[in-house]
Amino acid sequence: MTKQARPLILVTNDDSIIAPGIRTLIRIMNTIGEVVVVAPDSPQSGMGHAITIHDTLRCLPAQQDAGPQTEYACSGTPVDCVKLAVHEILDRTPDLIVSGINHGSNASVNVIYSGTMSAAVEGAMQRVPSIGFSLLDYSWDADFSAAEPYIKQIATSVLEKGLPAGVCLNVNIPKANGTPYAGIKVCRQTMGHWEEDFDIRIDPTGKPYYWMRGEFVDSDGGDDSDIWALNHHYLSVVPIQFDLTAHHALAAVHSVIGA
Amino acid sequence: MTKQARPLILVTNDDSIIAPGIRTLIRIMNTIGEVVVVAPDSPQSGMGHAITIHDTLRCLPAQQDAGPQTEYACSGTPVDCVKLAVHEILDRTPDLIVSGINHGSNASVNVIYSGTMSAAVEGAMQRVPSIGFSLLDYSWDADFSAAEPYIKQIATSVLEKGLPAGVCLNVNIPKANGTPYAGIKVCRQTMGHWEEDFDIRIDPTGKPYYWMRGEFVDSDGGDDSDIWALNHHYLSVVPIQFDLTAHHALAAVHSVIGA
Repeated sequence: MTKQARPLILVTNDDSIIAPGIRTLIRIMNTIGEVVVVAPDSPQSGMGHAITIHDTLRCLPAQQDAGPQTEYACSGTPVDCVKLAVHEILDRTPDLIVSGINHGSNASVNVIYSGTMSAAVEGAMQRVPSIGFSLLDYSWDADFSAAEPYIKQIATSVLEKGLPAGVCLNVNIPKANGTPYAGIKVCRQTMGHWEEDFDIRIDPTGKPYYWMRGEFVDSDGGDDSDIWALNHHYLSVVPIQFDLTAHHALAAVHSVIGA
Repeated sequence: MTKQARPLILVTNDDSIIAPGIRTLIRIMNTIGEVVVVAPDSPQSGMGHAITIHDTLRCLPAQQDAGPQTEYACSGTPVDCVKLAVHEILDRTPDLIVSGINHGSNASVNVIYSGTMSAAVEGAMQRVPSIGFSLLDYSWDADFSAAEPYIKQIATSVLEKGLPAGVCLNVNIPKANGTPYAGIKVCRQTMGHWEEDFDIRIDPTGKPYYWMRGEFVDSDGGDDSDIWALNHHYLSVVPIQFDLTAHHALAAVHSVIGA
Protein backbone atom coordinates (compact mmCIF):
# COMPACT_ATOMS: atom_id res chain seq x y z
CA MET A 1 0.00 0.00 0.00
CA THR A 2 1.51 3.37 -0.94
CA LYS A 3 1.52 6.17 1.58
CA GLN A 4 -1.03 8.12 -0.48
CA ALA A 5 -3.48 5.23 -0.31
CA ARG A 6 -3.29 4.88 3.45
CA PRO A 7 -6.33 6.26 5.28
CA LEU A 8 -5.93 9.66 6.91
CA ILE A 9 -6.75 9.45 10.63
CA LEU A 10 -7.26 12.48 12.88
CA VAL A 11 -6.57 11.83 16.56
CA THR A 12 -7.73 14.09 19.38
CA ASN A 13 -8.83 13.82 23.04
CA ASP A 14 -9.75 15.94 26.06
CA ASP A 15 -7.02 14.97 28.54
CA SER A 16 -4.44 16.94 26.48
CA ILE A 17 -1.81 15.92 23.96
CA ILE A 18 0.60 14.54 26.56
CA ALA A 19 -1.86 12.12 28.22
CA PRO A 20 -0.88 8.41 28.10
CA GLY A 21 -4.33 7.61 26.66
CA ILE A 22 -3.82 9.64 23.47
CA ARG A 23 -0.19 8.48 23.17
CA THR A 24 -1.49 4.88 23.14
CA LEU A 25 -4.20 5.74 20.60
CA ILE A 26 -1.65 7.44 18.31
CA ARG A 27 0.58 4.38 18.46
CA ILE A 28 -2.32 2.07 17.50
CA MET A 29 -3.48 4.36 14.68
CA ASN A 30 0.06 4.56 13.25
CA THR A 31 -0.31 0.84 12.41
CA ILE A 32 -3.47 1.54 10.39
CA GLY A 33 -2.98 4.79 8.53
CA GLU A 34 -1.43 8.22 8.17
CA VAL A 35 -1.98 9.99 11.47
CA VAL A 36 -2.39 13.70 12.26
CA VAL A 37 -2.92 14.72 15.87
CA VAL A 38 -4.72 17.96 16.74
CA ALA A 39 -5.27 17.83 20.48
CA PRO A 40 -5.71 20.27 23.37
CA ASP A 41 -2.58 21.77 24.92
CA SER A 42 -4.21 21.54 28.38
CA PRO A 43 -6.82 19.31 30.05
CA GLN A 44 -10.35 19.87 28.71
CA SER A 45 -12.33 17.25 30.61
CA GLY A 46 -15.99 18.08 31.14
CA MET A 47 -15.99 20.66 28.34
CA GLY A 48 -18.84 18.92 26.53
CA HIS A 49 -19.53 20.44 23.12
CA ALA A 50 -18.07 23.84 24.07
CA ILE A 51 -16.49 25.93 21.31
CA THR A 52 -14.37 29.07 21.45
CA ILE A 53 -16.32 31.90 19.91
CA HIS A 54 -15.42 34.95 22.01
CA ASP A 55 -11.66 34.34 22.05
CA THR A 56 -8.84 33.45 19.69
CA LEU A 57 -7.35 30.00 19.15
CA ARG A 58 -3.75 28.88 18.93
CA CYS A 59 -2.76 25.74 17.03
CA LEU A 60 0.95 25.09 16.61
CA PRO A 61 3.14 22.11 15.64
CA ALA A 62 3.95 20.18 18.82
CA GLN A 63 5.65 16.90 18.03
CA GLN A 64 5.82 14.79 21.21
CA ASP A 65 7.88 11.87 19.92
CA ALA A 66 9.65 10.49 16.83
CA GLY A 67 6.42 9.89 14.96
CA PRO A 68 5.61 9.00 12.21
CA GLN A 69 2.45 10.98 13.08
CA THR A 70 2.28 14.78 12.71
CA GLU A 71 1.15 16.66 15.82
CA TYR A 72 -0.42 20.01 16.66
CA ALA A 73 -1.38 21.34 20.08
CA CYS A 74 -4.43 23.60 20.21
CA SER A 75 -5.46 26.07 22.89
CA GLY A 76 -9.14 25.26 22.45
CA THR A 77 -11.66 22.60 23.35
CA PRO A 78 -11.81 19.12 21.78
CA VAL A 79 -14.57 20.35 19.43
CA ASP A 80 -12.38 23.32 18.44
CA CYS A 81 -9.61 20.82 17.64
CA VAL A 82 -11.86 18.87 15.27
CA LYS A 83 -13.12 22.02 13.55
CA LEU A 84 -9.62 23.46 13.16
CA ALA A 85 -8.24 20.15 11.91
CA VAL A 86 -10.98 19.45 9.37
CA HIS A 87 -11.33 22.99 8.02
CA GLU A 88 -7.81 24.38 8.40
CA ILE A 89 -4.96 22.01 9.31
CA LEU A 90 -5.62 18.91 7.19
CA ASP A 91 -5.14 19.04 3.43
CA ARG A 92 -7.97 16.59 2.82
CA THR A 93 -11.00 15.27 4.69
CA PRO A 94 -9.92 12.57 7.14
CA ASP A 95 -11.18 9.03 6.64
CA LEU A 96 -11.58 8.54 10.38
CA ILE A 97 -11.57 10.64 13.55
CA VAL A 98 -10.68 8.93 16.83
CA SER A 99 -10.81 10.61 20.22
CA GLY A 100 -9.29 9.35 23.46
CA ILE A 101 -8.32 7.07 24.94
CA ASN A 102 -10.07 8.92 27.75
CA HIS A 103 -8.83 8.36 31.27
CA GLY A 104 -12.23 7.53 32.82
CA SER A 105 -15.73 6.42 31.88
CA ASN A 106 -17.88 8.11 29.26
CA ALA A 107 -20.70 5.61 29.65
CA SER A 108 -24.34 6.60 30.22
CA VAL A 109 -24.96 10.36 30.42
CA ASN A 110 -21.23 11.07 30.80
CA VAL A 111 -21.28 11.20 27.00
CA ILE A 112 -23.01 14.60 27.27
CA TYR A 113 -20.36 16.21 29.51
CA SER A 114 -17.40 14.58 27.79
CA GLY A 115 -14.99 16.56 25.65
CA THR A 116 -13.67 13.28 24.25
CA MET A 117 -17.10 12.22 23.03
CA SER A 118 -18.09 15.71 21.87
CA ALA A 119 -15.07 15.60 19.52
CA ALA A 120 -16.48 12.38 18.05
CA VAL A 121 -19.96 13.91 17.78
CA GLU A 122 -18.48 16.93 15.98
CA GLY A 123 -16.71 14.50 13.64
CA ALA A 124 -20.07 12.91 12.79
CA MET A 125 -21.52 16.40 12.21
CA GLN A 126 -18.63 17.02 9.78
CA ARG A 127 -19.63 13.73 8.06
CA VAL A 128 -16.49 11.83 9.05
CA PRO A 129 -16.76 8.36 10.65
CA SER A 130 -15.79 9.04 14.27
CA ILE A 131 -15.17 7.04 17.42
CA GLY A 132 -14.52 8.03 21.04
CA PHE A 133 -12.62 5.54 23.22
CA SER A 134 -12.62 5.62 27.04
CA LEU A 135 -11.09 3.34 29.64
CA LEU A 136 -12.81 3.02 33.02
CA ASP A 137 -9.62 3.94 34.85
CA TYR A 138 -8.96 7.55 35.88
CA SER A 139 -5.31 7.03 36.78
CA TRP A 140 -2.60 8.64 34.66
CA ASP A 141 -0.71 5.33 34.44
CA ALA A 142 -3.77 3.25 33.54
CA ASP A 143 -3.11 -0.06 31.77
CA PHE A 144 -4.34 0.27 28.17
CA SER A 145 -2.64 -2.88 26.87
CA ALA A 146 -5.61 -5.28 27.01
CA ALA A 147 -7.73 -2.70 25.18
CA GLU A 148 -5.32 -2.18 22.28
CA PRO A 149 -6.35 -5.10 20.01
CA TYR A 150 -10.03 -4.19 20.44
CA ILE A 151 -9.38 -0.55 19.58
CA LYS A 152 -7.49 -1.56 16.45
CA GLN A 153 -10.27 -3.99 15.46
CA ILE A 154 -13.08 -1.43 15.94
CA ALA A 155 -11.20 1.35 14.11
CA THR A 156 -10.34 -0.98 11.22
CA SER A 157 -13.95 -2.18 10.92
CA VAL A 158 -15.26 1.40 10.85
CA LEU A 159 -12.65 2.40 8.24
CA GLU A 160 -13.67 -0.54 6.05
CA LYS A 161 -17.44 -0.41 6.48
CA GLY A 162 -18.21 3.18 7.54
CA LEU A 163 -20.97 4.24 9.91
CA PRO A 164 -24.59 5.26 9.37
CA ALA A 165 -24.92 8.98 8.55
CA GLY A 166 -25.18 11.20 11.62
CA VAL A 167 -23.87 8.49 13.96
CA CYS A 168 -20.58 8.11 15.84
CA LEU A 169 -19.50 5.48 18.34
CA ASN A 170 -19.04 5.76 22.10
CA VAL A 171 -16.69 2.90 23.05
CA ASN A 172 -16.08 2.29 26.75
CA ILE A 173 -13.62 -0.30 27.97
CA PRO A 174 -13.62 -1.89 31.43
CA LYS A 175 -10.63 -1.30 33.66
CA ALA A 176 -8.05 -4.06 33.10
CA ASN A 177 -8.28 -6.64 35.88
CA GLY A 178 -6.01 -9.39 34.57
CA THR A 179 -8.81 -11.45 33.03
CA PRO A 180 -9.54 -11.24 29.29
CA TYR A 181 -12.44 -9.01 28.19
CA ALA A 182 -15.71 -10.91 27.59
CA GLY A 183 -16.05 -9.34 24.12
CA ILE A 184 -17.86 -6.35 22.61
CA LYS A 185 -21.53 -5.45 23.16
CA VAL A 186 -23.40 -2.96 20.97
CA CYS A 187 -25.80 -1.33 23.41
CA ARG A 188 -27.76 1.76 24.36
CA GLN A 189 -26.93 4.64 26.70
CA THR A 190 -27.84 3.75 30.29
CA MET A 191 -30.54 6.00 31.78
CA GLY A 192 -29.22 7.85 34.82
CA HIS A 193 -28.02 11.19 36.06
CA TRP A 194 -25.53 12.81 38.43
CA GLU A 195 -26.67 14.00 41.86
CA GLU A 196 -24.30 16.77 42.81
CA ASP A 197 -23.25 17.36 46.39
CA PHE A 198 -21.20 20.56 46.47
CA ASP A 199 -18.27 20.88 48.83
CA ILE A 200 -18.54 24.41 50.26
CA ARG A 201 -15.36 26.05 51.53
CA ILE A 202 -14.53 29.52 52.79
CA ASP A 203 -11.71 31.49 51.18
CA PRO A 204 -9.21 33.56 53.22
CA THR A 205 -11.41 36.67 52.83
CA GLY A 206 -14.45 34.86 54.28
CA LYS A 207 -16.35 34.30 51.03
CA PRO A 208 -17.74 30.87 50.08
CA TYR A 209 -16.66 28.84 47.07
CA TYR A 210 -17.71 25.45 45.80
CA TRP A 211 -16.15 22.25 44.49
CA MET A 212 -18.52 20.19 42.37
CA ARG A 213 -18.66 16.55 43.32
CA GLY A 214 -21.40 14.08 42.61
CA GLU A 215 -22.69 10.57 42.61
CA PHE A 216 -24.02 8.80 39.55
CA VAL A 217 -27.58 7.52 39.99
CA ASP A 218 -28.37 4.59 37.70
CA SER A 219 -32.12 4.59 36.99
CA ASP A 220 -31.95 1.96 34.27
CA GLY A 221 -31.70 -1.71 35.23
CA GLY A 222 -31.81 -3.08 31.68
CA ASP A 223 -29.39 -5.72 30.39
CA ASP A 224 -28.93 -3.99 27.02
CA SER A 225 -27.29 -0.85 28.43
CA ASP A 226 -23.65 0.21 28.33
CA ILE A 227 -23.20 0.06 32.11
CA TRP A 228 -24.58 -3.49 32.19
CA ALA A 229 -22.06 -4.51 29.52
CA LEU A 230 -19.16 -2.82 31.34
CA ASN A 231 -20.17 -4.41 34.65
CA HIS A 232 -19.94 -7.78 32.89
CA HIS A 233 -16.42 -7.01 31.55
CA TYR A 234 -17.58 -6.36 27.97
CA LEU A 235 -16.48 -3.37 25.92
CA SER A 236 -19.60 -1.27 25.27
CA VAL A 237 -20.28 0.34 21.89
CA VAL A 238 -23.15 2.86 21.81
CA PRO A 239 -24.14 4.51 18.51
CA ILE A 240 -24.56 8.22 19.31
CA GLN A 241 -26.52 10.72 17.22
CA PHE A 242 -26.58 14.51 17.11
CA ASP A 243 -30.25 14.74 16.17
CA LEU A 244 -31.49 15.52 19.67
CA THR A 245 -35.17 15.62 18.64
CA ALA A 246 -37.31 13.45 20.92
CA HIS A 247 -39.32 12.18 17.95
CA HIS A 248 -41.40 9.95 20.23
CA ALA A 249 -42.51 13.03 22.19
CA LEU A 250 -43.68 15.24 19.29
CA ALA A 251 -47.37 14.36 19.74
CA ALA A 252 -47.25 14.74 23.53
CA VAL A 253 -45.58 18.14 23.27
CA HIS A 254 -48.14 19.19 20.66
CA SER A 255 -50.81 18.45 23.22
CA VAL A 256 -48.97 20.27 26.06
CA ILE A 257 -48.40 23.43 24.02
CA GLY A 258 -51.78 23.31 22.30
CA ALA A 259 -50.12 24.32 19.03
CA MET B 1 -52.97 31.92 45.95
CA THR B 2 -50.54 32.01 48.87
CA LYS B 3 -46.87 32.56 48.21
CA GLN B 4 -46.06 28.99 49.26
CA ALA B 5 -48.44 27.62 46.66
CA ARG B 6 -46.90 29.56 43.80
CA PRO B 7 -44.67 27.47 41.53
CA LEU B 8 -40.93 27.84 42.05
CA ILE B 9 -39.21 28.85 38.81
CA LEU B 10 -35.45 28.78 38.27
CA VAL B 11 -34.20 31.19 35.60
CA THR B 12 -30.78 30.99 33.95
CA ASN B 13 -29.12 31.75 30.59
CA ASP B 14 -25.74 31.87 28.88
CA ASP B 15 -25.48 35.57 27.96
CA SER B 16 -24.93 36.46 31.66
CA ILE B 17 -27.20 37.79 34.37
CA ILE B 18 -27.22 41.35 33.02
CA ALA B 19 -28.36 40.48 29.48
CA PRO B 20 -31.67 42.07 28.39
CA GLY B 21 -32.91 38.62 27.35
CA ILE B 22 -32.78 37.17 30.86
CA ARG B 23 -34.10 40.41 32.38
CA THR B 24 -37.16 40.05 30.12
CA LEU B 25 -37.56 36.37 31.02
CA ILE B 26 -37.37 37.18 34.77
CA ARG B 27 -40.05 39.84 34.37
CA ILE B 28 -42.37 37.38 32.60
CA MET B 29 -41.76 34.60 35.13
CA ASN B 30 -42.47 36.98 38.05
CA THR B 31 -46.09 37.07 36.79
CA ILE B 32 -46.33 33.26 37.03
CA GLY B 33 -44.47 32.15 40.13
CA GLU B 34 -41.77 32.61 42.73
CA VAL B 35 -38.55 33.24 40.80
CA VAL B 36 -34.95 32.46 41.71
CA VAL B 37 -32.23 33.43 39.24
CA VAL B 38 -28.91 31.58 39.18
CA ALA B 39 -27.12 32.84 36.09
CA PRO B 40 -23.54 33.23 34.84
CA ASP B 41 -21.63 36.31 35.94
CA SER B 42 -20.01 36.53 32.47
CA PRO B 43 -20.99 35.50 28.91
CA GLN B 44 -20.99 31.73 28.41
CA SER B 45 -22.21 31.44 24.83
CA GLY B 46 -21.05 28.34 23.00
CA MET B 47 -20.22 26.52 26.22
CA GLY B 48 -22.47 23.59 25.33
CA HIS B 49 -22.82 21.12 28.20
CA ALA B 50 -19.49 22.10 29.78
CA ILE B 51 -19.15 21.76 33.55
CA THR B 52 -16.47 23.00 35.93
CA ILE B 53 -14.68 20.00 37.41
CA HIS B 54 -11.05 21.10 37.68
CA ASP B 55 -11.75 24.49 39.24
CA THR B 56 -13.84 26.05 41.98
CA LEU B 57 -17.16 27.82 41.55
CA ARG B 58 -18.42 31.08 43.01
CA CYS B 59 -22.12 31.75 43.48
CA LEU B 60 -23.10 34.91 45.32
CA PRO B 61 -26.25 37.00 45.78
CA ALA B 62 -26.38 39.55 42.97
CA GLN B 63 -29.69 41.38 42.93
CA GLN B 64 -29.93 43.39 39.70
CA ASP B 65 -33.21 45.23 40.35
CA ALA B 66 -36.02 45.66 42.88
CA GLY B 67 -37.33 42.12 42.38
CA PRO B 68 -39.43 40.36 43.61
CA GLN B 69 -37.11 37.60 42.28
CA THR B 70 -34.01 36.48 44.20
CA GLU B 71 -30.78 36.53 42.19
CA TYR B 72 -27.40 34.82 42.32
CA ALA B 73 -24.48 35.26 39.91
CA CYS B 74 -22.31 32.20 39.32
CA SER B 75 -18.78 32.01 37.94
CA GLY B 76 -19.52 28.79 36.07
CA THR B 77 -21.24 27.59 32.93
CA PRO B 78 -25.03 27.47 32.46
CA VAL B 79 -25.01 23.76 33.36
CA ASP B 80 -23.03 24.57 36.53
CA CYS B 81 -25.73 27.14 37.37
CA VAL B 82 -28.50 24.53 37.12
CA LYS B 83 -26.56 21.98 39.19
CA LEU B 84 -25.69 24.54 41.88
CA ALA B 85 -29.25 25.86 41.98
CA VAL B 86 -30.99 22.49 42.17
CA HIS B 87 -28.59 20.83 44.62
CA GLU B 88 -27.37 23.76 46.72
CA ILE B 89 -29.10 27.13 46.38
CA LEU B 90 -32.80 26.25 46.22
CA ASP B 91 -34.58 24.93 49.29
CA ARG B 92 -36.89 22.74 47.21
CA THR B 93 -36.94 21.24 43.72
CA PRO B 94 -38.10 23.85 41.22
CA ASP B 95 -41.35 23.29 39.34
CA LEU B 96 -39.89 24.74 36.16
CA ILE B 97 -36.48 25.75 34.78
CA VAL B 98 -36.37 28.36 32.04
CA SER B 99 -33.22 29.45 30.22
CA GLY B 100 -32.74 32.49 28.02
CA ILE B 101 -34.04 34.50 26.37
CA ASN B 102 -30.95 33.85 24.28
CA HIS B 103 -29.76 36.65 22.04
CA GLY B 104 -29.52 34.59 18.83
CA SER B 105 -30.77 31.37 17.27
CA ASN B 106 -30.50 27.96 18.91
CA ALA B 107 -32.34 26.23 16.07
CA SER B 108 -31.02 23.13 14.29
CA VAL B 109 -27.63 21.89 15.54
CA ASN B 110 -27.02 25.14 17.44
CA VAL B 111 -28.80 23.33 20.28
CA ILE B 112 -25.64 21.24 20.77
CA TYR B 113 -23.26 24.22 21.17
CA SER B 114 -25.68 26.33 23.15
CA GLY B 115 -25.14 27.02 26.85
CA THR B 116 -28.74 28.22 27.04
CA MET B 117 -30.11 24.92 25.76
CA SER B 118 -27.63 22.81 27.71
CA ALA B 119 -29.03 24.37 30.89
CA ALA B 120 -32.49 23.18 29.81
CA VAL B 121 -31.13 19.71 28.97
CA GLU B 122 -29.49 19.54 32.41
CA GLY B 123 -32.85 20.52 33.90
CA ALA B 124 -34.47 17.56 32.15
CA MET B 125 -31.68 15.31 33.44
CA GLN B 126 -32.49 16.58 36.95
CA ARG B 127 -36.15 15.63 36.23
CA VAL B 128 -37.46 19.19 36.21
CA PRO B 129 -39.64 20.42 33.31
CA SER B 130 -37.30 22.76 31.42
CA ILE B 131 -37.49 25.16 28.50
CA GLY B 132 -34.86 27.14 26.60
CA PHE B 133 -36.00 30.31 24.81
CA SER B 134 -34.04 32.02 22.03
CA LEU B 135 -34.79 35.02 19.83
CA LEU B 136 -33.29 35.14 16.33
CA ASP B 137 -31.73 38.52 17.00
CA TYR B 138 -28.13 38.79 18.21
CA SER B 139 -28.31 42.47 19.14
CA TRP B 140 -28.13 43.51 22.78
CA ASP B 141 -31.18 45.75 22.37
CA ALA B 142 -33.27 43.13 20.57
CA ASP B 143 -37.05 43.61 20.70
CA PHE B 144 -38.50 40.83 22.89
CA SER B 145 -41.97 42.40 23.28
CA ALA B 146 -43.82 40.41 20.60
CA ALA B 147 -42.40 37.19 22.06
CA GLU B 148 -43.53 37.85 25.63
CA PRO B 149 -47.13 36.55 25.49
CA TYR B 150 -45.95 33.36 23.74
CA ILE B 151 -43.25 32.77 26.35
CA LYS B 152 -45.79 33.18 29.13
CA GLN B 153 -48.23 30.85 27.38
CA ILE B 154 -45.64 28.10 26.80
CA ALA B 155 -44.26 28.30 30.35
CA THR B 156 -47.76 28.21 31.84
CA SER B 157 -48.76 25.21 29.73
CA VAL B 158 -45.64 23.30 30.75
CA LEU B 159 -46.21 24.16 34.43
CA GLU B 160 -49.78 22.90 34.19
CA LYS B 161 -49.28 19.80 32.08
CA GLY B 162 -45.61 18.85 32.54
CA LEU B 163 -43.37 17.33 29.89
CA PRO B 164 -42.59 13.72 28.95
CA ALA B 165 -39.75 12.27 31.08
CA GLY B 166 -36.30 12.98 29.68
CA VAL B 167 -37.53 15.74 27.38
CA CYS B 168 -37.07 19.52 27.46
CA LEU B 169 -38.17 22.16 24.96
CA ASN B 170 -36.07 24.20 22.54
CA VAL B 171 -38.18 27.27 21.72
CA ASN B 172 -36.89 29.61 19.01
CA ILE B 173 -38.64 32.85 18.15
CA PRO B 174 -38.29 34.75 14.87
CA LYS B 175 -36.82 38.23 14.99
CA ALA B 176 -39.59 40.77 15.45
CA ASN B 177 -40.45 42.40 12.11
CA GLY B 178 -43.59 44.36 12.95
CA THR B 179 -46.01 41.67 11.76
CA PRO B 180 -47.64 39.28 14.25
CA TYR B 181 -46.12 35.83 14.63
CA ALA B 182 -47.91 33.12 12.57
CA GLY B 183 -48.24 30.93 15.68
CA ILE B 184 -46.34 28.03 17.25
CA LYS B 185 -45.11 24.90 15.42
CA VAL B 186 -43.95 21.77 17.24
CA CYS B 187 -41.21 20.46 14.99
CA ARG B 188 -37.96 18.52 14.71
CA GLN B 189 -34.34 19.72 14.71
CA THR B 190 -33.27 20.74 11.20
CA MET B 191 -30.45 18.60 9.79
CA GLY B 192 -27.40 20.72 9.02
CA HIS B 193 -23.95 21.63 10.24
CA TRP B 194 -21.49 24.51 10.47
CA GLU B 195 -18.68 24.84 7.90
CA GLU B 196 -15.94 26.75 9.64
CA ASP B 197 -13.70 29.16 7.80
CA PHE B 198 -11.00 30.28 10.23
CA ASP B 199 -9.70 33.81 10.08
CA ILE B 200 -5.90 33.48 10.50
CA ARG B 201 -4.00 36.46 11.89
CA ILE B 202 -0.41 37.01 12.94
CA ASP B 203 0.38 38.27 16.43
CA PRO B 204 3.07 40.93 17.11
CA THR B 205 5.66 38.16 17.70
CA GLY B 206 4.98 36.58 14.31
CA LYS B 207 2.93 33.59 15.49
CA PRO B 208 -0.44 32.71 13.96
CA TYR B 209 -3.75 32.72 15.79
CA TYR B 210 -7.27 31.97 14.67
CA TRP B 211 -10.76 33.39 14.97
CA MET B 212 -13.48 30.81 14.40
CA ARG B 213 -16.15 31.90 11.99
CA GLY B 214 -18.51 29.74 10.04
CA GLU B 215 -21.47 29.34 7.80
CA PHE B 216 -24.47 27.16 8.57
CA VAL B 217 -25.18 24.57 5.88
CA ASP B 218 -28.83 23.45 5.85
CA SER B 219 -28.98 19.90 4.50
CA ASP B 220 -32.63 19.37 5.40
CA GLY B 221 -35.33 20.78 3.14
CA GLY B 222 -38.30 19.39 5.09
CA ASP B 223 -41.35 21.45 6.04
CA ASP B 224 -41.55 19.95 9.54
CA SER B 225 -38.21 21.34 10.75
CA ASP B 226 -37.52 24.22 13.12
CA ILE B 227 -35.79 26.36 10.50
CA TRP B 228 -38.75 25.94 8.14
CA ALA B 229 -41.09 27.14 10.90
CA LEU B 230 -38.86 30.11 11.77
CA ASN B 231 -38.54 31.09 8.09
CA HIS B 232 -42.35 31.20 7.99
CA HIS B 233 -42.53 33.46 11.07
CA TYR B 234 -43.68 30.70 13.44
CA LEU B 235 -42.18 30.09 16.85
CA SER B 236 -40.54 26.65 16.71
CA VAL B 237 -40.79 24.19 19.61
CA VAL B 238 -38.51 21.13 19.39
CA PRO B 239 -38.69 18.43 22.08
CA ILE B 240 -35.05 17.64 22.97
CA GLN B 241 -33.84 14.46 24.68
CA PHE B 242 -30.61 13.55 26.43
CA ASP B 243 -30.70 9.91 25.41
CA LEU B 244 -28.22 10.26 22.55
CA THR B 245 -28.46 6.59 21.53
CA ALA B 246 -29.10 6.24 17.80
CA HIS B 247 -31.57 3.41 18.40
CA HIS B 248 -32.27 3.12 14.66
CA ALA B 249 -28.57 2.40 14.07
CA LEU B 250 -28.05 -0.39 16.62
CA ALA B 251 -28.40 -3.19 14.05
CA ALA B 252 -26.19 -1.46 11.49
CA VAL B 253 -23.45 -0.86 14.06
CA HIS B 254 -23.72 -4.48 15.18
CA SER B 255 -22.96 -5.47 11.63
CA VAL B 256 -20.06 -2.97 11.27
CA ILE B 257 -18.35 -4.08 14.48
CA GLY B 258 -19.16 -7.75 14.02
CA ALA B 259 -20.01 -8.01 17.72
